[in-house]
Amino acid sequence: MISSPKNPRLKDIRRLKRCKGERALLEGPHLVGEALRAGIVVEEVLATAEFGASALGTELLSRLASPPTMIEGRLLNSLTDADSPRGLIAVARLPRGGVESLPAPHTGLWIYADALQDPGNLGALARVAEAVGVDGLALSPGTVHPNHPRALRASAGSLLRLPVARNVEASALDDHLSPAHPRWACLATRGGTDLYSADLRPPLILAVGAEGPGLDAGLLERAELKISIPLAPPVESLNATVAVAVALFEIVRHKG
Amino acid sequence: MISSPKNPRLKDIRRLKRCKGERALLEGPHLVGEALRAGIVVEEVLATAEFGASALGTELLSRLASPPTMIEGRLLNSLTDADSPRGLIAVARLPRGGVESLPAPHTGLWIYADALQDPGNLGALARVAEAVGVDGLALSPGTVHPNHPRALRASAGSLLRLPVARNVEASALDDHLSPAHPRWACLATRGGTDLYSADLRPPLILAVGAEGPGLDAGLLERAELKISIPLAPPVESLNATVAVAVALFEIVRHKG
Repeated sequence: MISSPKNPRLKDIRRLKRCKGERALLEGPHLVGEALRAGIVVEEVLATAEFGASALGTELLSRLASPPTMIEGRLLNSLTDADSPRGLIAVARLPRGGVESLPAPHTGLWIYADALQDPGNLGALARVAEAVGVDGLALSPGTVHPNHPRALRASAGSLLRLPVARNVEASALDDHLSPAHPRWACLATRGGTDLYSADLRPPLILAVGAEGPGLDAGLLERAELKISIPLAPPVESLNATVAVAVALFEIVRHKG
Repeated sequence: MISSPKNPRLKDIRRLKRCKGERALLEGPHLVGEALRAGIVVEEVLATAEFGASALGTELLSRLASPPTMIEGRLLNSLTDADSPRGLIAVARLPRGGVESLPAPHTGLWIYADALQDPGNLGALARVAEAVGVDGLALSPGTVHPNHPRALRASAGSLLRLPVARNVEASALDDHLSPAHPRWACLATRGGTDLYSADLRPPLILAVGAEGPGLDAGLLERAELKISIPLAPPVESLNATVAVAVALFEIVRHKG
């Protein structure tokens, strides 16, 4: 039972709040449950007595290979930036490879995240990407780490399952996927081909730009297909995740 | 120039952070500019000297009917919960009526937000709603106030322009819109009609439920059309705003 804020194990876990490595902090029963279901290596689980005594807790903790470390609720809350980790966190190993770690093409649809800064946006992007069945998510150098606790949480588990490659230059992704001959596509606030009349057939790599500055000029040039979502005036743009989601669902319809 | 945190005008503005009335706090140049463009009555504008001296500031402040109140940056930041209000806030009057304030049908598409709690979600919903050209947004009793600063911000201006009715019971919306004979629709995580084979032709009222508990049982019963978005397993659900956006864009395609 950990009940002192000076316990040395806490120092180690506190560092994971700003995760930059393969050891990741999973906050809350949903994410920990998803990790166990996905067969991810969970190093350590910390639970409150209250969670352990709940129906969900009894079921979930019974699936662990080794017993959890019990911890006071107040201390557990101090380890996370979740509003409420609901009595359970875990430390898991989530190694992320480079472009070579992406699997062989199946749906022929990939996402390239260019310099995304907000972990919540990356998580939401991964959730939609998995929902439409992309083959993988490639992250540019400078994109936030996919093991950031907030990214993992916002992904609702998708970042635990989806093939994610880090530190990928656009040209390297192109080389790696060249046998599949994908076209590059991107979203343009205006001036692109209308989403509903564009030829959206995969294989496609959809490039998604940073929140503020938008897509890098080199990527814009690379994109053979610039898509605009028709918007009722005076609306000029959508939230980035919403725009990507609307485009992805439309692309998937053209797969068959 | 306001430079003391004890200035009595600040107390009044601080109250607007948790806005529950028709006086609303607009944070940042984008939102204030949108309000001026939309012809909204702006009671008071507070700006930092730095913002006033910038190119954007000179242009924007020149459009005001009366001169802004200058304020120290540190104090201005303390008045908002925006990460960065960027040197400008304003107090505006945004009266919100009941169901009778909704305009006559045009596109025949309405959204009914049932007990939404998160102001950011309400704002994002309004942004998508305006982007697809809905006729109006009706909020159930218990839904967060549309004048909440965070809702206004997340809406990127849409909550300044879109017809929004508050305190609307589903039955009252039905009565009010009965000449248009709209059907009620809702999203179901599973078991609904596939989004791409459903008859989505307006007139439609799309009911959107609360973040946690989902849609109220009475609304589920009222909904003639239950829509499910096809998701690649093992994904079980989308973020609520993303799901609504994907459904709305599909509905709009069936308008013509």
